[in-house]
Amino acid sequence: MQQQIVEVRVEDVRFPTSLQQHGSDAMHPDPDYSAAYVVLETDGGRRGYGLTFTLGRGTQVVVCAVEALSGLLLGKTLEDIVDDFRGFYRLLTSDSQMRWIGPEKGAIHLATAALLNAVWDLWARVEGKPLWKLLVDLSPEQLVSCVDFRYISDALTEQQALDLLREAQAGKAEREQQMLQEGYPAYTTSCAWLGYSDQQLTQLCTDALANGWSRFKVKVGAELKDDERRCRLIRQMIGPDKTLLMDANQRWDVGEAIRWMSSLAPFRPLWIEEPTSPDDILGHAAISKALAPLGIGVASGEQCHNRVMFKQFLQASALQFVQIDSCRLGSVNENLAVLLMAHKFQVPVCPHAGGVGLCELVQHLILFDYISLSADLTNRMCEYVDHLHQHFSSPVVIRNAHYLPPKDPGYSCEMLESSVEAHRFPHGRVWADLSAQGRR
Amino acid sequence: MQQQIVEVRVEDVRFPTSLQQHGSDAMHPDPDYSAAYVVLETDGGRRGYGLTFTLGRGTQVVVCAVEALSGLLLGKTLEDIVDDFRGFYRLLTSDSQMRWIGPEKGAIHLATAALLNAVWDLWARVEGKPLWKLLVDLSPEQLVSCVDFRYISDALTEQQALDLLREAQAGKAEREQQMLQEGYPAYTTSCAWLGYSDQQLTQLCTDALANGWSRFKVKVGAELKDDERRCRLIRQMIGPDKTLLMDANQRWDVGEAIRWMSSLAPFRPLWIEEPTSPDDILGHAAISKALAPLGIGVASGEQCHNRVMFKQFLQASALQFVQIDSCRLGSVNENLAVLLMAHKFQVPVCPHAGGVGLCELVQHLILFDYISLSADLTNRMCEYVDHLHQHFSSPVVIRNAHYLPPKDPGYSCEMLESSVEAHRFPHGRVWADLSAQGRR
Repeated sequence: MQQQIVEVRVEDVRFPTSLQQHGSDAMHPDPDYSAAYVVLETDGGRRGYGLTFTLGRGTQVVVCAVEALSGLLLGKTLEDIVDDFRGFYRLLTSDSQMRWIGPEKGAIHLATAALLNAVWDLWARVEGKPLWKLLVDLSPEQLVSCVDFRYISDALTEQQALDLLREAQAGKAEREQQMLQEGYPAYTTSCAWLGYSDQQLTQLCTDALANGWSRFKVKVGAELKDDERRCRLIRQMIGPDKTLLMDANQRWDVGEAIRWMSSLAPFRPLWIEEPTSPDDILGHAAISKALAPLGIGVASGEQCHNRVMFKQFLQASALQFVQIDSCRLGSVNENLAVLLMAHKFQVPVCPHAGGVGLCELVQHLILFDYISLSADLTNRMCEYVDHLHQHFSSPVVIRNAHYLPPKDPGYSCEMLESSVEAHRFPHGRVWADLSAQGRR
Repeated sequence: MQQQIVEVRVEDVRFPTSLQQHGSDAMHPDPDYSAAYVVLETDGGRRGYGLTFTLGRGTQVVVCAVEALSGLLLGKTLEDIVDDFRGFYRLLTSDSQMRWIGPEKGAIHLATAALLNAVWDLWARVEGKPLWKLLVDLSPEQLVSCVDFRYISDALTEQQALDLLREAQAGKAEREQQMLQEGYPAYTTSCAWLGYSDQQLTQLCTDALANGWSRFKVKVGAELKDDERRCRLIRQMIGPDKTLLMDANQRWDVGEAIRWMSSLAPFRPLWIEEPTSPDDILGHAAISKALAPLGIGVASGEQCHNRVMFKQFLQASALQFVQIDSCRLGSVNENLAVLLMAHKFQVPVCPHAGGVGLCELVQHLILFDYISLSADLTNRMCEYVDHLHQHFSSPVVIRNAHYLPPKDPGYSCEMLESSVEAHRFPHGRVWADLSAQGRR
């Protein structure tokens, strides 16, 4: 597998999703789902595709960060990298000058995610396996050799990680078969974006119920009266037994979150997601403690910027649901660290997805988590949003509200060339047309 | 003061400090002190200068982020901004698309700092006052109107902040006089960078003692034996009564930090700075608890990325010394929030400085803190490093190891045009010469 990386390309690809209020929430009324999209070329003629997700403006900053880091990949072979993946992760995240603008957070860490996602895609393609299967087939020793335990050893040592993975070997083959047959349970966020009308919400919810969905997320946090009306509407439609999830997208301060959710408790949400700042570990702990008697858990993670933060959320009992993100953390390497810590602390992982490409990517991680680590589906589900999948060469397959395991080799984040062409910002056809129409 | 901002320029300015190992520490062996340097132009012919500090590579990412945000300033008048400074801060930090690549962290927040530093410089220049004096002369109501209390109201409300500022009005005039006469106490980091030889360290320490310095910081964390030798050398030179500070620059995990500092305890440091990840609030709390019986406090803040993190460090008793940074936090606005919280929690503030321009900037904030808020000098001191001041039009003035209050209007971060020209990366003369010599 001597594949030397000889070129790193990065593209600013944006989709004008804000035109239809897709993705709108209490803090992001008008997202244009976008990506810093990376293509690695090797001298052996192989490619690796990776991306990190963004909301439109600012994508160029992440593209610039990818370019700044790309020199650390050029000239390396895939073998060099995966033989010491921990060391390579450290190289990217601890460059002695660039770490100042992180470290391991913000634009530079999103760029690290995009690049490492492409390396993992390349590896899986060279092995001829979908990424989840590559991970499932790696030995516990190989898996932990990908993880940087710096700053988390007080919560999880390398030896403890090894032990957890070894313990979970029993029943792996059966769980893999189960996933291939049933898929991994999903919930839908597509029905109740904040900018949707009640009529649109009702229609989408009706359709989703007909399609077998039983877990629904609603965006809240802008106006309490609107939230009450929308939550009542959804709860009435889905009935008392199906799962309702709420998401405030960081809208509240700590006290406000507790008061607001006490008002929405009658609609029996399983969790409130991102009730306050994604940085506020102690705030989430206070909210968790206050809402526990109401039967409401706290979920967060899509903007939790690294394993050190997740470690503390777990140490402080600040989360009852861990929402990993495939593009915010440092790719598979850092997600492995978080999956291992969540397993040690026995907190269920329910990945963040949606956006563009996030479903395609994170399904691999949660399949690995179930087959090789958690062996548990209680209160576990992966987010699903039905936008933009048509732009990928291996889009997700949902059947009866479950993610079916991908079969194509790689990490499922190759976009169609025609989609990249049309949505390249600012000169792709879609953006040129919008600009000519005066809509951008 | 109708000064409409009609142009925002940003420069990538780098100084090749790594050639002499200036600034070297356990995580940053070869920093090239750099800045994303901002110049605002108004239609009234006034200018505002601002910067954020970086370590070389990666500065272009911050420059790109400044460019991404600069549209939010163009067309605004200084009056628009300062009449609702909280709102303007929120506008910059909560752009509905760009906040995804932060929020309030990493490259985008460093860019926010550079731009807002330039706005504060412009305001102080228009008022004809050095920034510290502008702040001292603002009413408590005006000061709190600059602060975004979002996400910190569980620790400090606007009303509490007002009360703290009003209480501290007594004695303000006397403290201002005292500062003008004596200056604010400083400590020096210039003697003991990690890359310096023992001989160089001895010479610099001898010189510093002769110049009246009584507080010294030494870099530690790479090799314990080296640390012991260097700390013994310094403690012998400065004697038992002077202050020794240690700085590990995030080198350790939690347990390692406790063990290592137990070994260095005989040299009686007042604090250990950045013992572990800057994100690890609970880790710092554990280290604080373990080192308290040894008489060693924990200091951190130069990479603490926003007020939400500082809030938690204070709530968790994780720091005994708060090290604000003028370029990591969102300028004066967010530093006001942190100064107010530190005062409420009665933890001394000892600003981070050094780099390029950090001394020039942060002296204003700590002068304000003493005169208008803390009224206390116990265990308080501002970092000083004697590099690169010659590139500024109003360099810091140190007398008898104290910062003398700046007199020129503004925030002291205007660089000489000749310095910007020569150090512009990558085509300025200094970098072109190094490149021609094959040294870059």
